[in-house]
Formats: sequence, C-alpha cells, structure tokens
Amino acid sequence: MQSDVAIAQAHQLEAIETIAAKVDIPEEAILPYGRSKAKVDPALVPTERKGKLVLVTGMSPTPAGEGKSTVLIGLADAFSLQGHRTVVAIREPSLGPVMGIKGGAAGGGYSQIVPMEDINLHFTGDFHAITSANNTLAAIIDNHIHQGNELGIDVRRITWQRCQDVNDRSLRNVVTGLGGKAHGVPEQTGFSITAASEIMAILCLATSLEDLKERISKVVVAQTFDGAPVTVAQLNAEGALTALLRDAIQPNLVQTIGGTPAFVHGGPFANIAHGCNSLIATDTALRLGDVVLTEAGFGSDLGAEKFFDIKARAGELNVDAAVIVATIRSLKYNGGAARDVLNQEDLGALEKGVCNLERHVENIRQFGVEPVVALNEFSFDSDAEREWMHQWATSAGVRLVDVAAWERGGEGATDLAQAITEQWDQHSHSLYDPAEGIEASIRSIATKIYRADDVELSKKARKDLEYLKANGWDTLPVCISKTQYSFSDDPQALGAPSGHVLHVRELLPRIGAGFVVALTGDVMTMPGLPKRPAAEKIDVEDGKIVGLF
Amino acid sequence: MQSDVAIAQAHQLEAIETIAAKVDIPEEAILPYGRSKAKVDPALVPTERKGKLVLVTGMSPTPAGEGKSTVLIGLADAFSLQGHRTVVAIREPSLGPVMGIKGGAAGGGYSQIVPMEDINLHFTGDFHAITSANNTLAAIIDNHIHQGNELGIDVRRITWQRCQDVNDRSLRNVVTGLGGKAHGVPEQTGFSITAASEIMAILCLATSLEDLKERISKVVVAQTFDGAPVTVAQLNAEGALTALLRDAIQPNLVQTIGGTPAFVHGGPFANIAHGCNSLIATDTALRLGDVVLTEAGFGSDLGAEKFFDIKARAGELNVDAAVIVATIRSLKYNGGAARDVLNQEDLGALEKGVCNLERHVENIRQFGVEPVVALNEFSFDSDAEREWMHQWATSAGVRLVDVAAWERGGEGATDLAQAITEQWDQHSHSLYDPAEGIEASIRSIATKIYRADDVELSKKARKDLEYLKANGWDTLPVCISKTQYSFSDDPQALGAPSGHVLHVRELLPRIGAGFVVALTGDVMTMPGLPKRPAAEKIDVEDGKIVGLF
Repeated sequence: MQSDVAIAQAHQLEAIETIAAKVDIPEEAILPYGRSKAKVDPALVPTERKGKLVLVTGMSPTPAGEGKSTVLIGLADAFSLQGHRTVVAIREPSLGPVMGIKGGAAGGGYSQIVPMEDINLHFTGDFHAITSANNTLAAIIDNHIHQGNELGIDVRRITWQRCQDVNDRSLRNVVTGLGGKAHGVPEQTGFSITAASEIMAILCLATSLEDLKERISKVVVAQTFDGAPVTVAQLNAEGALTALLRDAIQPNLVQTIGGTPAFVHGGPFANIAHGCNSLIATDTALRLGDVVLTEAGFGSDLGAEKFFDIKARAGELNVDAAVIVATIRSLKYNGGAARDVLNQEDLGALEKGVCNLERHVENIRQFGVEPVVALNEFSFDSDAEREWMHQWATSAGVRLVDVAAWERGGEGATDLAQAITEQWDQHSHSLYDPAEGIEASIRSIATKIYRADDVELSKKARKDLEYLKANGWDTLPVCISKTQYSFSDDPQALGAPSGHVLHVRELLPRIGAGFVVALTGDVMTMPGLPKRPAAEKIDVEDGKIVGLF
Repeated sequence: MQSDVAIAQAHQLEAIETIAAKVDIPEEAILPYGRSKAKVDPALVPTERKGKLVLVTGMSPTPAGEGKSTVLIGLADAFSLQGHRTVVAIREPSLGPVMGIKGGAAGGGYSQIVPMEDINLHFTGDFHAITSANNTLAAIIDNHIHQGNELGIDVRRITWQRCQDVNDRSLRNVVTGLGGKAHGVPEQTGFSITAASEIMAILCLATSLEDLKERISKVVVAQTFDGAPVTVAQLNAEGALTALLRDAIQPNLVQTIGGTPAFVHGGPFANIAHGCNSLIATDTALRLGDVVLTEAGFGSDLGAEKFFDIKARAGELNVDAAVIVATIRSLKYNGGAARDVLNQEDLGALEKGVCNLERHVENIRQFGVEPVVALNEFSFDSDAEREWMHQWATSAGVRLVDVAAWERGGEGATDLAQAITEQWDQHSHSLYDPAEGIEASIRSIATKIYRADDVELSKKARKDLEYLKANGWDTLPVCISKTQYSFSDDPQALGAPSGHVLHVRELLPRIGAGFVVALTGDVMTMPGLPKRPAAEKIDVEDGKIVGLF
C-alpha cells in the first residue's frame, strides 16, 4: 500500500489557474503561491451565494482514525464527477501536530488535497502570520508595562498569551521577564498553540479586512489594577496586527486529486477553539459553487455544535445537508474493544458502540438537519459487520451509505453524493439563544448535546462570570473547550454517556472573536510531542518531502 | 516629501517573469509568490560564475542613518542604466525591528526594492520557516528529556535557545517547563531573535539543500552530564528541519524601482551574527549577472570583516570592488556633534569625525581591496562641508564620489558606478588563518580591525575555549558579536578609538554554521521595543499598508 504522500506526489497537478477557471474565478482575483497554490481575493468574485452547503462531521474520534477529511474530499470529487460545480472549504492543518503525532492531514489515499506536503508544512504562511500578530501583541503589552505602564495593567491579570505552531509542552507554563530591570517585568504566563489563539478565531469569523481590524481592536488582553478590561485599541496595535494579517485573511485555493477546487483556510481546533475553517472561505465558496463541502472538527458535540451556534450565526449560513462519518473500527472501540484487536470481527462491540453514532445523529437533528451517515470502509471490516450496520440503520431510521474514498477517490463516494442530493433542502438553526446568558447557553449545550445532568462552575468560573456580566459580555455565544473523545468532559467515558456533570473551570472573554470560551475538564491549549515524534520520520530526498503519512 | 512606502506604492511594478527574463532565468526556475515576488531554483540556472562582485559596506552606523541600502540600490540601477546586466543580492529585513524602531528597510526614496511592504512584512516566509525549524528543534530537545532522557542531556547545559522574529525583551530570560510532571522539565533559557539563530546562519552559508541538511545534523544543542556534545543527528531531527526549510533556501527574486533584478534572501544581523545575505543568492546572482551588488551589515569591522573571513571563505568568493557609504551628518556625529544639530554646518565636527571613515577605508584595504567612498548626499549638507570632504579625500588618497540615490534613483549614482568600473579587477583575501586557533583569530581581528591593544577572555570564555579545543573546534573561523556603533566593544566610543581592550564574554560553538561565536561587551541577541514602537503607526487603509517609513 502506498503512503499518502507518495500517492499525492505521483499525481499530476493541474495549474492553479486551470482550477480557478473551473468556477470562473477571474484572473485578477488570483494571487499565485507557486504553481499549485493561490490566494483568492474575495472582493473580486460574484457576491451572491448560490451553493448548497453540506456540512461533514464525524462520530467521536478515536485513535483508530475515521477518515473524515478523506470522505469529504472523496465526496467532493464524486459531486464533480456527477457534473456539479463543486467547491471544498475546509481548515488548513496545523504544523505542530504534523511534527507530533499526525505526520500530515489533508485527506488520504486517492481522496487528498494536493500539494499535500506544502499544505502540511508552511502552506501560504497563514499560521505564521497569526503567530506573528499574536506575539507582536504580547511584546507590545509587556513593553507597555516596562516603559512605565500608563494604562495601569496588572501584570498578574494579563490574559493574552504567546503562541507558536509547534507542539511544546515546556511552554505551557513559563516565567518571562527575568534577568533584571533592563529585561522586562517578571510574569507568570504561557504559550498556546497558534490554532488556539484568539487571532485565529477572529481570522476565521471576520467578514472582511475592515471587520478583522474592528474585531482585533476589541480584543481584551488584560485587566488594570482596578479590574477594568484593557483592549488592543488602548495599545494602538490593531493597525499593525491587521497589516500582519492582510494576506492571511484571503482564502487559499488548492485542488483535490480529482481536480475539484478547494479552499483550505484557517485552522482552529474544535476541542480548544471553534473548529471551523474561515467564514470568508466558506462564503467565497458559496458564491462560486453549486455544491460546497465544508467540515467542522471532531464530532457533533464539538465542531458541528460550534458550526451551527457560532459560525453559522456569525455568517448567516444555512446548512442544507449534513454527513456524519463513522467507521466500524471506531464504533467497536467505542463499544469497548481494545485498540489492538479493532481489525478483528466483533459484532458484540459494534452493537455496544453504535450508541455513539446514534447520539451524533440525534444531535445533528437538534439543529434541524437530518444527516446521512457515511460508513467509511476499511479492508478489515467483515461482511457480517457491514451487514449489521445496515440493519441497524434501517431499524433506527438512519440513512447509511458505504464509502470507499481512500481507495477509489470520487468513484468511491458517488452513492453518498446521490443520497445527499435527495435531502439537501433542509433548514438549519442554532441550539440556544445567547440573550439568555452564558450560563443558560452552557446548560443548553451540556444537557441537550452532551447529555449531562448538570453543569458545575468552579469558584474561578463563578468569578469570571461576574466579570463577564459587569462588562455586558454574558450574552455572547459560548465556545466550549472539551475533550473530543467523549460527550462528557472525561476522555475515558466512551460510547454515549449521560447523567454526568460538566465541570467548567474558567470562562474567558474573547471579545474580538465574539464569544466566551468555557474551559472544561483538563483540556490543554498546547499539545506536547509523543515519545517518538513524527518529525523523526520526515525527511527530504532529492528535493522531495518524505515521511508525511 | 513623500514617504518611502508612498513612493514604492506609486511605482508600477513589472511582472516578476519580466524581471527574471532580463537575466535569462528560465521560466521553469521561477516559482511565483504573488505577481511581483518569486523563488528561484538555483539548480536551473547556468553554473558558471561570470559576474563582478561589488561589496557595499558602510562607516560606523549612527542614529542619523547613512542610507547604505539606498546607495546600493541606486548604484544597481545606475549600472543597469549603463547597460550592465546587473543583479542585486542583499539580505531580507527582519520583521522584529520593522515593528520596533525601523518601520521598514528596503532602501529609500527612488532607490528602493519593491514591493517594499511585502518585503518588510512576511515576504516569502523564510524567517517564519527558520523560526519553525529552530523551535521544533527546541521542542524535540525538551521532549527527549521529558520522555526519559536516553542521551543523558544536562538540562543546565542546553545551549539551543528558542527564537522568534518579534522584538520582545521579556523573552530574553525565561524559565520554561513549569507546572509539574506533565508539563516538561523546568529549565532556565531564553529566546533570541530569528536573525540570530544558527539555522539562519546555516541557511545563509549552505551551498545546497544537501549541504543544509548535513550542516543541521552537526549542530550542537547541549552537553551531556559527562560534558559530551549532543548533536541534532543524535535526535534524528535533521530531516524534519530540512523539510521545513526546503523552500526557504531558494533565493527570493524581486525588483528595484529601476527594474533591476534583486535577490533578497537571508537576514542575519551583523552585530550578533555574520551579517550577510545567503551564499546561494550571491552565487546565483554571479551566475546570472555581469555586475552583482551585495552588502554586509554595518561597517568594515562587522559585516565586511565577516564577509571576507566567513562568507567569502565558505563560498570561494572574490570581491572585485568595494564601496563604503558615508554621510556628512554621520561623520559629524562621530566627531562629537549632538544628534539634534546634525543638520547645521559644523566643519570642526566633520574634521574630527572623518577618522571613522579613514579607519573603515584602512580596514577594507587590509582585505586587499581599495574601496570607493560613496558620499550619500543630504539636503542639509552645506557646500563648505562637501568641499571639505573632497579636499580630505584628495589629500588622504581616497576616491570619493557624491551620490544622490534617495532623490534621483539610478541617475543619482552613475558617477559612483563609473568609478567602480575603473577599479573592479581587484583580488580580495581573508584576514587570518583559522588554523592558528580561535584565540589567534580573535586577536587578529581585534588588533588589526578594531585596533584594540589586547583581548581579554572572561573566565567563562576560557572554559569555553577548553571545550572547543577538546572537541577540535578551535580552528573554525570566528564570528565576533560586537556593538556596531564603535570599533571597540563600548558603544559610546565613537570616531576611531584605539588602544582599548576587547572583552570576550563567551565562546559558542556553531558547528552547523561552521564558526565559533565570540560574544563581546553587552550585545544582546533579542532586541526590545522602544517606548513608542513603530507598530503604532503601521496600519491598513483600503487594503494598503501605510506607516512603513
């Protein structure tokens, strides 16, 4: 079996101008980055949205891997094969995990976005621009204090952290500004991964460069000694930060192996951030294509919930159809099968684990959309297991379609495309009304989507809530940071747990992004590297990148 | 008077393909980044060097600014006007200082490299790639220790620092790995600016991607508890780091306002690093042009010395001619005139300060090259002052030519171009023989170039020297880190001090770069922001960057 990078490199790419021409992107809107990547100026494409928006989400992720991106890309190529004017709009991978566990993320097999090695490494530099903007702001804050602290910033209450797109657990908790008077003011702080930065969230929710600047100016970075919020506007930094993001905000155009135009733009994680590609890219895609495939990170409880409640609200998007990607192996894992026996037939575990999928189906229905389940085939799946899945689907009233996107590309997803076209006139809605207050919003998500019995706010979270209320921020939507492995905040509780308690640790205002982050459980905003990092396998041979899976 | 960015933005750029065609760069060698920037694959251009190499350096820099880049760019356009096939090869600006004091650095007035705002911001992402590679390595080192420390790395003797391209004094001295067992091992460390990273030096001295990987594998990052060096190769990280630099090592092609092709590639500072653009870019330029204009940071004591002793040695380069840029204002400053009266005539200060220029002339002669002095005109210079300068030049036996590059572009530098063509058959050589040992090399530079009477190694430096000798590294060339404001290690000692003592604080092996860094005086590898950072003035208006000077 060939590796993903080998398949991708063997593929003959079309010139990016050819890809752009397929959906009539005018030549002057294209800014090439090499021969097969380009930035697209959204101001130069038609303004009217005309596409059907198909949201692809997944069951709860497992170490076995479900191939959500692979299915989405195969599905896009299937739509293209059927003559639809199709555009993909998905997130760009973060470099940190590429060097850590993942080794690459742009689909797999014959359902990939290419050039995969560029996309997985620096791509067009968006993440680096975000890191620069984020860390320039951090330097400006600390410099302000060092130079006399006119604004009276309380060094113990600086909430703006530095970031980088490298997995580095040693930077989670640091003390900066040591070395004496010439070297700043000592401060206990930390770094998050770039994907978790509020700048990333803002870039993904902004509707224009002007809106980006406006949002950045509102970002709250600290409190004064009197407890008043300190904003970027007070530091005169929004102009420079916007300048640093001028190119990054334009969507990146690449292609699938099937030649479908793909916007790959913005990359917040769905466990620690809102988990959706940029609104600008989705909007641009809807103005160009008849069918737009987009995704949201992890399952219905994370990315999809945030898609409906945060992104769709901000961008006035309707989800016309939804897909939930599942695999037999991952269902068995959710049913208690050990990781090393997932390739063996185990109908008992499958039957026990299917509740996870059921729950995701129910969740998507709560947003007004009847999903199609895409069963992503693996060669290890037994006939009996597949048979059982179809029987389950019939009895549960769920539409389930087999997909073989990894092996067969678009050809392996034509049935799924057909099924979607039969139900893409749906009307989606959000789950809760933010006007009822943050606590009520969290409670809605926790009880309806996570099936918790209760929500418990820590003492710190209670205090945060007072601060939010005092500043009129408690009617913003909430972005819950939660483990992706379970509907609960305990990553060990697989399947479809209910009756648990959601523990909210902190509530963080993200005024530029326009939401409040609720940290639950032990989720960390900076990953570490594993014992054997994927970096050890990555190499360059004859000018070609190897070792990206 | 228009601002630099306004002049640059009013200029109609030629398509980068047109620029490339002027020096017959084949189309397949061009990788466009937007319409007016491109990476060039050096493997696809002719291999034979045929250009004359003209090195542009300066007198000791002052806060008044000398316009070294401006003169170089004007000179390049002058050569182009005279029908020479001219190529520029200079460094790319670091983003940190752009947001700090400088606000931009790609020449000035009608002698600029464009698009200046792109070049000053992220450009083609080279610095970001270097930051990523540098910090990925830092994460891999700390992860190795966290995961069991098989190599026995002494956490107190990790010499590899993190870096970023943001001026942030608070990151000079930090403690990382706090927060308990799950979050790494506590460590006292620091960040330098990306320009000071050994990865930057390697990128600028490597002759190919293979050489880059070989050099990276040799980088020493720490010592074991037994005092043995730990290399990148032992951490299996050279492949991943090379993959991260695959595109960054290719030279960036842009253009001057006069339409001359310009490679702008690599950017180590000359005070804290070796201060020259990439060898690959200079080499590629020499294979394409008849005249190649290159620069080295700051004066003859820093960038130029390192050009002759490090870069020219590594790349087997001959300097065919050299230019020293000087201004009347900066000479008066070196003669003791206060900064706020530099625009007033002061023949006394000029006479007193010209010794600085004399010293730089003498220094360049020590490398076998007779320089031309370019007197960069300012409107404030009086006729008497100019007259005096020419009299001085005649009596001192120095060739001095007036230049008006800022105001008149290439037209303002034709006399300088003419003077150079009359003496560009020279043969340059290095100053010292590294085989005599680091201490002798430092002594050569200190006594002959800095005119110190003595060199004093600190106790730490003495210990470092033993470590270098024990590992066979003391016959590498030396890269001295020293203030740019004085020939001595005291930034206050202007003019042409002699008889001083050079204080060497530390000796750091940079085995990948192939030299040993000697830290002198108080030079810091991470700048801070000033009270009013340039960032406060930078903005975006109607999609255009403003506020870059």
